[in-house]
Amino acid sequence: MAKATLTISSKNYSSWSLRGWLLTTFAGLEFEEVVTAPDDPSARAELLLLSSSILVPCLRHDGATVWDTLAIGEYLNEIMPHAGLLPEDRIQRAHCRSISGEIHSGFTTLRSSLPVNLKGHFPGFKIWSRAQADIDRVCTIWRDCLGASGGPFLFGERRTMADAMYAPVVTRFMTYDVKLEPALAVYASTIMTMPEMQEWIEAAKAEPADVEELEVEY
Amino acid sequence: MAKATLTISSKNYSSWSLRGWLLTTFAGLEFEEVVTAPDDPSARAELLLLSSSILVPCLRHDGATVWDTLAIGEYLNEIMPHAGLLPEDRIQRAHCRSISGEIHSGFTTLRSSLPVNLKGHFPGFKIWSRAQADIDRVCTIWRDCLGASGGPFLFGERRTMADAMYAPVVTRFMTYDVKLEPALAVYASTIMTMPEMQEWIEAAKAEPADVEELEVEY
Repeated sequence: MAKATLTISSKNYSSWSLRGWLLTTFAGLEFEEVVTAPDDPSARAELLLLSSSILVPCLRHDGATVWDTLAIGEYLNEIMPHAGLLPEDRIQRAHCRSISGEIHSGFTTLRSSLPVNLKGHFPGFKIWSRAQADIDRVCTIWRDCLGASGGPFLFGERRTMADAMYAPVVTRFMTYDVKLEPALAVYASTIMTMPEMQEWIEAAKAEPADVEELEVEY
Repeated sequence: MAKATLTISSKNYSSWSLRGWLLTTFAGLEFEEVVTAPDDPSARAELLLLSSSILVPCLRHDGATVWDTLAIGEYLNEIMPHAGLLPEDRIQRAHCRSISGEIHSGFTTLRSSLPVNLKGHFPGFKIWSRAQADIDRVCTIWRDCLGASGGPFLFGERRTMADAMYAPVVTRFMTYDVKLEPALAVYASTIMTMPEMQEWIEAAKAEPADVEELEVEY
């Protein structure tokens, strides 16, 4: 069987790429990264939030092509069931999928007004009121999960699909200086200091300037 | 065990409610409908596409609360595995989840410029170019699926999660008079004439006027 590949775009700007990469890494599937050129129309459209549909990240494995983060998560959970991408308990699993789905389809204001930018840091960033509603909802979701599970991850000791789905939100909170209550700040720090996250952030910071130009156009 | 409940909002306007309702109906799970009042802030926000997150539809079953359409689909697939909400074949299943995920997180222009309105019919509706790109992508997705499966549904003889996810798009194409090539028009007609769809549309047409007011505010 050929090695799996994961197609991603900018590590500095692409929240979807980060999710797909973390899911595949959490699952423990060996894969080769394929980085789309920044002038690839599909990659650009994704980064500029202009895409009619998001075809990055894309996992290719053993004849299957999976191009949506939740679909990638479900696929990985099927082929790597012991990785624990979904909680074992039926009710917890439904909860994990609900909040993963919520960040997947919703939070459009948060996504557009606080775009992922791992190189950036904007202390005192002024948050638009509708984005604040999104932030409040994220905090409620995290508070509920961490309160029930005891942490350190949303559903307890193991990283699940939900942690990968919310990881770009954590980076947004860091980039735009969003103040968090202590328990949530601890969770954010847990995510930011994961070795996988550190590896991704380092690569993002080393990303060449032609990808950075997108920032200006945004 | 108490009977399952499915909370939905307007049958005329809510694409997410239709998806959740079709999924639950396809799965064959008995459930009671709970319709949120049109002045419920969460229902209004959903209909006006203002919600920071979409908490309707919501399935409650045997202690589990599931509030996202894809999460509902996955949950139902777990408890009703013989309903065939997901294809049996691993590669087909990955494909089904990919296109379901794509419509779940993407197609924002289609969603906002051609809102679901089952009572409406607008022959010659002028389609904005970016919405056309979304329409073209939907057609590509359907063409690929129907070409591979032979129809009548996207993955063959049985209705899957993907047919439920794209059903509101079919209604949009009818409402806004979107021209379809013959094979896709047959698929659209297959979806529109399903008994479950007919039942939903009849209920939508009988919906009281206080829900209709939302149309004006949109």
